[in-house]
Amino acid sequence: MTDKVAVIGLGSMGLGMACSLRRAGHEVRGADVVEAARAAFTNSGGKAFAAAAEAARGCGVVVLVLLSAEQCETVLFGEGGIAGTLQPGTVVIGCSTVAPSFARETESRLDALGLLYVDAPISGGAAKAAEGALTIIASGRPAAMAGADAALEAMAEHVYRVAEEAGPASAVKMINQHLAGIHIAAACEAVALGIRAGLDPRMLYEIISNAAGSSWMFQNRVPQILDGDYRPHSAADIFVKDLGIVGDAARELGFPVPMASAALQMFLMTKAAGMGRDNDSSVIRVYSRLAGLELPGGVR
Amino acid sequence: MTDKVAVIGLGSMGLGMACSLRRAGHEVRGADVVEAARAAFTNSGGKAFAAAAEAARGCGVVVLVLLSAEQCETVLFGEGGIAGTLQPGTVVIGCSTVAPSFARETESRLDALGLLYVDAPISGGAAKAAEGALTIIASGRPAAMAGADAALEAMAEHVYRVAEEAGPASAVKMINQHLAGIHIAAACEAVALGIRAGLDPRMLYEIISNAAGSSWMFQNRVPQILDGDYRPHSAADIFVKDLGIVGDAARELGFPVPMASAALQMFLMTKAAGMGRDNDSSVIRVYSRLAGLELPGGVR
Repeated sequence: MTDKVAVIGLGSMGLGMACSLRRAGHEVRGADVVEAARAAFTNSGGKAFAAAAEAARGCGVVVLVLLSAEQCETVLFGEGGIAGTLQPGTVVIGCSTVAPSFARETESRLDALGLLYVDAPISGGAAKAAEGALTIIASGRPAAMAGADAALEAMAEHVYRVAEEAGPASAVKMINQHLAGIHIAAACEAVALGIRAGLDPRMLYEIISNAAGSSWMFQNRVPQILDGDYRPHSAADIFVKDLGIVGDAARELGFPVPMASAALQMFLMTKAAGMGRDNDSSVIRVYSRLAGLELPGGVR
Repeated sequence: MTDKVAVIGLGSMGLGMACSLRRAGHEVRGADVVEAARAAFTNSGGKAFAAAAEAARGCGVVVLVLLSAEQCETVLFGEGGIAGTLQPGTVVIGCSTVAPSFARETESRLDALGLLYVDAPISGGAAKAAEGALTIIASGRPAAMAGADAALEAMAEHVYRVAEEAGPASAVKMINQHLAGIHIAAACEAVALGIRAGLDPRMLYEIISNAAGSSWMFQNRVPQILDGDYRPHSAADIFVKDLGIVGDAARELGFPVPMASAALQMFLMTKAAGMGRDNDSSVIRVYSRLAGLELPGGVR
């Protein structure tokens, strides 16, 4: 049953995941509304469809690699949605970053239709997706996890199995994004302040990446800033969304998150300044434009 | 001339630095107003004095290892201050975390007395100080740096020489503290939110310390939280001071620092709640007390 897998969403992540599944011996049916995305998968030897329901036909596992909870909702339960067309026992693997409450609700709604759900947010970029070397944080009922196992292993280098229900995996991803978003905003503020104080940002990077002020994001994003590279390796809009999820979830829990809130405002300023689709390190350009700094590469 | 070194301030850092200097062959005269601190140095074979001026007599190098700019100001220029008693050409090495503007002013005031100054903030804990394995970020005029060199090398594993004037070294340290403070506050908020969302904080630590949300501070402080250990390895008050320096310096520069500002508020809440002398990870106890969470070790 798990030999036939649908991958809904053939963007930079989904395409690589679909190819990794094929390499592992699965028959893979991809779906994307964008023709170029379908063509990329077809050119690599896969089968691609415009309609998700068409791709999902006869598949025992359906992997959703979509941008948002709204897209997942539409694909599953909207007009032409696939949930009503899937065979009972089919396992849906949700890989998008969504609110833990959305993951729980999806599990419940699919359960009412006799379908299984694995809450399975992913981490790692397009290159890791193409290599089948993602990190996947997964939680779901034992039957769902068992049915998803071969597909998860084909797509991931590390699978963390964190709970026997949907929700906790998305909560872990949410906490990771909370920290990642704050660390990007902090790195941008720190480097901009350093430049304003007259320091050479390359010197600052060399010292701090070896010191207690370092973070994974500082080490990853500051070199891009030093190269003047703001191509969307990971767009600022993603953190508008993900820190929005943090803020919403924390409010639902009645829990204050002033640090995440400050970071969200920085990503919103970046979006408001027209840089939402640029790299998330564009937060530094909010500071540089406000203060008239020149960034490496002559960027403003 | 550099064979005789005074170390003013024999706290947990100064004591180790004084011992490292002795091990490197320097004659070291220590000073501290606290008798127990003097006794610790005397017991290890050093000479200790209550008055800084007494310790500094005849020394070619004077190392200040004090808690704040105010203490440095008092020791150098206050009543009984040493600046007026030092031989022309003496090198003063300032190791405290101070505002870059204070470092520049100190250089200028000492210069007027024919004295040399090295702006030399330190990084690393008491253990590294005792081993002579600190990281020192140093800037100062070439003659000052040359005179300080043997002492710096005796105390440090890494000496970053960043500029030929005082100020830039303190600016680099300030940027490091900006990031370190934000990362501690973020780690505390993230782990508390995770606990509130029902996650096991140990599981969260295992996953995130290997993921893009990690930071040096996350990896260092979260294990202390998991152990329920809030002993003052590094007190919350230090970040009240250091993020205060960031805020003041940024305001002088007319530069906004919303991320550092949010973090400073968290450390001030920690201090206001009576935990300023506890470990800086006590920021998480502000969240846990507000939301009625139980932290590992049953801590509130």
